[in-house]
Amino acid sequence: MSIERIRNEALRQKVMSAEAAAEFVKDGMNLAITGFTGAGYPKALPTAIAEKAKAAHARGESFGIGMVTGASTAPECDGVLAEANAIKFRSPFQSDPTLRNSINAGNTAYQDMHLSHVEQQMRQGFYGKFDIAIIEATAITEDGKIIPAMGIGHGVEAVNNAEKVIIEINGALSAGLEGMHDVYAEVGLPPHRKPIPIIGAFDRIGTTALDCPADKILGIVLTNAGDRNSKFAEPDEVSKAIAAQVIDFLDHEVKAGRLPKSLLPLQSGVGNVANAVMAGLLDAPFEDLTGYTEVLQDGMLDLILAKKMKTASATALSFSPDALARFNENIEFLKDKIILRPMEISNNPEVIRRLGVIGMNSMIEADIYGNVNSTHIMGTKMMNGIGGSGDFTRNGFFSFYVSPSTAKGGAISAIVPMVSHHDHTEHDVMFIVTEQGMADLRGKSPRQRAKLIIDNCSHPDYRDMLRDYYDRAEKAGGLHTPHILLEALSWHQRFVETGDMRIK
Amino acid sequence: MSIERIRNEALRQKVMSAEAAAEFVKDGMNLAITGFTGAGYPKALPTAIAEKAKAAHARGESFGIGMVTGASTAPECDGVLAEANAIKFRSPFQSDPTLRNSINAGNTAYQDMHLSHVEQQMRQGFYGKFDIAIIEATAITEDGKIIPAMGIGHGVEAVNNAEKVIIEINGALSAGLEGMHDVYAEVGLPPHRKPIPIIGAFDRIGTTALDCPADKILGIVLTNAGDRNSKFAEPDEVSKAIAAQVIDFLDHEVKAGRLPKSLLPLQSGVGNVANAVMAGLLDAPFEDLTGYTEVLQDGMLDLILAKKMKTASATALSFSPDALARFNENIEFLKDKIILRPMEISNNPEVIRRLGVIGMNSMIEADIYGNVNSTHIMGTKMMNGIGGSGDFTRNGFFSFYVSPSTAKGGAISAIVPMVSHHDHTEHDVMFIVTEQGMADLRGKSPRQRAKLIIDNCSHPDYRDMLRDYYDRAEKAGGLHTPHILLEALSWHQRFVETGDMRIK
Repeated sequence: MSIERIRNEALRQKVMSAEAAAEFVKDGMNLAITGFTGAGYPKALPTAIAEKAKAAHARGESFGIGMVTGASTAPECDGVLAEANAIKFRSPFQSDPTLRNSINAGNTAYQDMHLSHVEQQMRQGFYGKFDIAIIEATAITEDGKIIPAMGIGHGVEAVNNAEKVIIEINGALSAGLEGMHDVYAEVGLPPHRKPIPIIGAFDRIGTTALDCPADKILGIVLTNAGDRNSKFAEPDEVSKAIAAQVIDFLDHEVKAGRLPKSLLPLQSGVGNVANAVMAGLLDAPFEDLTGYTEVLQDGMLDLILAKKMKTASATALSFSPDALARFNENIEFLKDKIILRPMEISNNPEVIRRLGVIGMNSMIEADIYGNVNSTHIMGTKMMNGIGGSGDFTRNGFFSFYVSPSTAKGGAISAIVPMVSHHDHTEHDVMFIVTEQGMADLRGKSPRQRAKLIIDNCSHPDYRDMLRDYYDRAEKAGGLHTPHILLEALSWHQRFVETGDMRIK
Repeated sequence: MSIERIRNEALRQKVMSAEAAAEFVKDGMNLAITGFTGAGYPKALPTAIAEKAKAAHARGESFGIGMVTGASTAPECDGVLAEANAIKFRSPFQSDPTLRNSINAGNTAYQDMHLSHVEQQMRQGFYGKFDIAIIEATAITEDGKIIPAMGIGHGVEAVNNAEKVIIEINGALSAGLEGMHDVYAEVGLPPHRKPIPIIGAFDRIGTTALDCPADKILGIVLTNAGDRNSKFAEPDEVSKAIAAQVIDFLDHEVKAGRLPKSLLPLQSGVGNVANAVMAGLLDAPFEDLTGYTEVLQDGMLDLILAKKMKTASATALSFSPDALARFNENIEFLKDKIILRPMEISNNPEVIRRLGVIGMNSMIEADIYGNVNSTHIMGTKMMNGIGGSGDFTRNGFFSFYVSPSTAKGGAISAIVPMVSHHDHTEHDVMFIVTEQGMADLRGKSPRQRAKLIIDNCSHPDYRDMLRDYYDRAEKAGGLHTPHILLEALSWHQRFVETGDMRIK
C-alpha cells in the first residue's frame, strides 16, 4: 500500500484524493511539475487538473497554467493537460504528440531551453514565481524527507522555489530506489557559488532525499501506476551501421593512446539510434566504462548488468517494460552502480567539461557546414526540443551527432544545404555520423567540412544534389561559407509542397 | 635596451635577428603564435616569415603555414603573412582586413572556434602537432621564466604544446607588467581534471610567469614596438542610447533586489558600442564594480582609474594610444587591480557560470526570434569570428547583444527575419538592445519574442516590413517558429543585389 510509504505520521494526515489536490490549482498559476523523459512525473493530479480545466472551459471561463517540468513527461501528464487546452506556457523539453500539436497550432507558448539552465533560471527568477510544485516520489521518510521517483529532474529547485508543494507517492515504484539519488542543493546563486565537487563521474556529493518543510506541503496523493515505459525498437541495420562507426572511431582513439581503454564517461541521447550505440558497446573492446548522462535507457542498463560498464550517473531511468523488470529484479546489484542526480548537475557545463564526457545525440538534420537542427521540422514546427544536447555538445570532450542519412522512406535527407533551424552551430559539432559514414569536423574550415560531410555522410540519392548546390554556391558569394541565400532552404520548401526533397 | 630584459645569462646567448629566427619556420609547419585582440603578438618575426614566403613563391615553391593564435593580432602579424599568401590555415579569431580578404577569397582555411575551447583542443590534439610557438614577452627572469606581454592569450598552451619556442622580447612594453599575470597551467586533460579554484573574479590561482625548458627555445628576437593601439570613437548618440538602456535595466534589477549594488562581474566585448557601455557606467549608480572579461579596453580602464571598478580580470589589454599612456603612468596603482589570465580561464564556462558574469557583446544582426549572427556578412563572408562571445552568452548570468538598429546609412537592418548565419541560438540569447529599445527574451516563446524584438528594437524604417513578414509567416507553416522558408533570407539577397535591404 502506498500509504505505508509515508513513514512520517504527521504527513499521513495530508493524504487526499487527486481531485481534492487539484482544487489548489487555479487559473493562471505557474507550476513546477517533476518528470524527466517519461519518468518521475505525477500520474493522477494532471488528469484531475485537466478535468477542472475542461469544466471551466465548458462554463466559458478561462483556465490555463504555466508549466515547467524536468524534461518530457507522458500522456497522463502533458497529454491530458494539452488535450484540455490547459497549458498556456511550457518549458523545457516535451515529446507528447498532443502537446506538440498544441505548440505548433499556436495554443501553447513553448520555450525551448538547455536543461542545464532550467534550475538556475528558476532560482534566478527568470520564469517568475512558482505557485505550486507537483512532484512524484517513492516514499517519505520518518523525518519528513522526500525520496524522489525514477528521476530527480528539477525536483530540488521545484520544491525549494515553489510556494507550496503537492506530492504524489507512487506505490508501483521499487522501494529499492531509496539510496540511489544524490540530491545536491548547494549550487546557489552568484556571487556566492563554489565549485561543484564532482571529480569522478560517480562521486556522491549530496544526500538521498529532498528537504521540504512540512508546512509547504498542501497535500499528498497516493498512486500506483507505471512510468511511460516505451518499447525500444531492436537495432536495425542502419542503427547498427551508425553504432559501428562510432565504436570504430573510439577504438582507433584508444589504440592511438588518445583515450583510455575505459574511454571517458559516456552520454547518450534518447532514441533508438543512441540505444543501438550502447547495445554495440556490449561487444566492443572497452572495459570498465562509465556513464554520465541525462537518461539511462535499456542499452546502458544492459552494459552495467553485463559488467562492461562499472557505474552510471543519470537524471532519470527510462526503460522499456522488459528493462524495467530487469532493473527491479537487480536493484540490489545496481544500487552502488547507478546514481540519480538533479538535471542541473547531470547537464552542468562545469562537470561535463571537467569529466570530458563523450556526448552522443540524435539530430533531425545537419547541414554541409556542420550546423545541426535537433528541434524543428521544416523550420517552423517544434518536434521535442533541445533537451540537454547543447550542454553536452558544447562542453563534452567529443560531440557526436547521429542519424540515418534519410527519413520518410528517402523523401527527406538528413544532410541539407542549410539546416532549417540552428540548435548546435558549426563552432560546436565535432562528428556527424550516418550509416553512410562519418565526418570528423575538428580543426577544419567550413569548406573542408562540406566536402567531408557530403562525401562521407549523405545518402547517394542526395549526394549529387548536394555537390551541385555546393559548386554553385562557391560562385555565388563569399568563399568562407558558400551559400545561395534564396536556395539554401529550398529543399525544405520542396518537401512541404511535394512531400519529397528530391526533384522529381 | 631589450637585452637587459633577458635576466638569464644563458638565454642571452640565444638572441638572434628576426631573419635568422624565421629560418626555423618551414613550409607546412603548424605554428602557435601569441596575440589577443591587438596585443601580445610578435612584432618582427611575422614580417621575416612573410619575406621568406614571398621569396619561396617567387621561386615557384610552396610556402604556407597553419597558425593558431589567441585571438586577433595586427597588420604586422596576420596582415603581413596574409599579404604574402602564407597562411594556409588559421584559427580562432581574426580581424585583419588582408587576412579577412584571404579567408573570403578561399585562400585561407579558417576555423572559427570559441576561445575557451582553443587551448583545450590544442592539448587534446585536435589541431594536430604544433611545430613552433612564437610568443611575445615582456622579460625573461633570472631563472629563465617568461613574463608575458600585454596579454597571455593561449601562451601557456602554446609553450607547453609546441616542440620548439621562439620568443620576442619587446622593450617597448612597460616593465611594470611583471606581476600582473596569473599563469595557470593546471587544467590538464580528463580524466584527471579538478575544479578551477576561482571563487571570486579577482582570485589569483597561478604564477606570474610561464615555464619553458631552455632547450625548447630556438631563439630570442629583440623588438621595440607598440601594440595595435587603435583609437576608439567617442561614444555617439546611438551608442549612448544603447548604453543607457543596458544601465537602466541593471539599475532596475538592483532596485528590485535581484542584483547586488556592485552588480556581478562584467564582461564587455570589443568595439565602440561595448566601450560606450563602459563609459556610461562612469556615471551610473553602481559602486565597487568588478570585471571578468577577455579584453580590457579604454572604458574599463577608466572605470578602474575612477575607482568605480575595484578590480578587473582579463586576457589582454587593448588600449587606444591615450589609454595606453594612462595605463603606463598608473601602472603601480593598477598592479593590484588588474589580473591577466590565459584565455582558457578568462573564457571558461565553469568560471563564467560560477561567477554569474554579465556578458555584453556586439552583434552583426539578430532575427525576430532572438538568434544572433556575430560573424558573417550576408551569410557567406567572414567578418572577425565568434571570439569569446559564445562562452559568455551560454554561461553568463545575463547575456546582452547590442547593436545600432541599422548599418550602412540605413541600408542594412540589424533586425532581420532570419539571421544569415547562426552563432548564438534562440536558446542562449537573453537581451537584444538597439538605440530603439530593448527586448527581454527570458522565459518567452519564439512568437512572444518576435513581437518584442520587432516592436522594441527594430528601426522604424524596417518595422512594418518585419511585421508584414511575420504576419505572413504565421499563415505559412507551423506556429512555433513561423517562417516563409524561401523569403527568410531574401533581405540579405536584396542587399547583395541592390545595396539596400529596403524595397525601393
